[in-house]
Amino acid sequence: MKAIIFDLDGTLVDSVYAHTLAWQKTLSQFGMQCPAWTIHRRIGMSGKLLVKAIAREQRRTLSESQVERLDEHHTQLFHKLAPACAPLPGSVELLAYLGESKIAHGIATSGKHAETEGSINALSPSPSAVVVDGDMVREVKPEPDLFLLCQRKLQVDRADCLIVGDAVWDIHAARRAGILAVGVLSGGFGEQELYNAGAMRVYQDAKALHAGIDELGFD
Amino acid sequence: MKAIIFDLDGTLVDSVYAHTLAWQKTLSQFGMQCPAWTIHRRIGMSGKLLVKAIAREQRRTLSESQVERLDEHHTQLFHKLAPACAPLPGSVELLAYLGESKIAHGIATSGKHAETEGSINALSPSPSAVVVDGDMVREVKPEPDLFLLCQRKLQVDRADCLIVGDAVWDIHAARRAGILAVGVLSGGFGEQELYNAGAMRVYQDAKALHAGIDELGFD
Repeated sequence: MKAIIFDLDGTLVDSVYAHTLAWQKTLSQFGMQCPAWTIHRRIGMSGKLLVKAIAREQRRTLSESQVERLDEHHTQLFHKLAPACAPLPGSVELLAYLGESKIAHGIATSGKHAETEGSINALSPSPSAVVVDGDMVREVKPEPDLFLLCQRKLQVDRADCLIVGDAVWDIHAARRAGILAVGVLSGGFGEQELYNAGAMRVYQDAKALHAGIDELGFD
Repeated sequence: MKAIIFDLDGTLVDSVYAHTLAWQKTLSQFGMQCPAWTIHRRIGMSGKLLVKAIAREQRRTLSESQVERLDEHHTQLFHKLAPACAPLPGSVELLAYLGESKIAHGIATSGKHAETEGSINALSPSPSAVVVDGDMVREVKPEPDLFLLCQRKLQVDRADCLIVGDAVWDIHAARRAGILAVGVLSGGFGEQELYNAGAMRVYQDAKALHAGIDELGFD
């Protein structure tokens, strides 16, 4: 293993639950009542995809501009609900370790630049870390584009690369990219959901992954 | 089967995610940073137990009066975050069906009366429904007391009774009470977590349970 690519929300920063409530309020203000757990299970895919999936479920048809408005509304509400972006246990230390050890690493998030800048800064990744976000690709997760872009920028083969994510969408996108994936529980998905999706190992959080990093082929 | 006992939060009303964020903010204001997912996994046990578990994890010692103050603070924040208590899909209809069909049924919640009154009212259960809450027993879930009190008030044998809950604590408490349990996913736990805890069946939500109620021995 030569490189490791992380998802952001729920993997490195504790933002999934705030995203869930921000989406629930946004959707409700646009007349779509939706139980929180069904939104939670969709965090990590693109905001537009999430809105379209829920609209289809509720047999509503939304125009592209309506979808866009909901997406913007969510971003505003999210920043109100979660002005501080707290790193999850062990993630700052893990990124620092990778920087010091000169292990190639990156962050690949479906979120837009403006939405994720605060979280990235809170992690203070080393200057060598490659960050790709939703503004840099046409299709975000569960499409593989974000992970593939990050892998190319890291200049490593896909076979020498590992993806870490908290959501089924990360694991799906990793598999579609042809890159192995491990899961973390820190976004609130169940362990078995991540194994079922194809994770080859599931850790509690970044801290536990750091403690077991030799198991993954990094040394 | 002659009677069915429901948990409230995450089973009949969509309150687990708001409880999670309210606890996270409360704990943080008292100097205990705690990732949301580890709180989520503890919703459904008593507030005091939750506080004590997290304090122990963080090697903090809290006095009984401090635990009490945190618990009260959480209740206030929760009401601010979730002033409206939304029933989960199918739960109002399921309770109405049980009332009309004269199937004995009850609600057993760890929450205190003041905290759960709004949710119960939003469900408009039939007058025959037996409601027991955290004010009525010494020990709430995962202790079996709440379920046993409800079962006795329903005047049915434990063998003729079924418990429905979204959290591992409901399933644990049900097993300790010697009553069979089924799970629902509407609180955001993973399906396998509920099966591992001992659920004999897991449904999406109250709506799916209602559609399959004959499978459970109610007719």
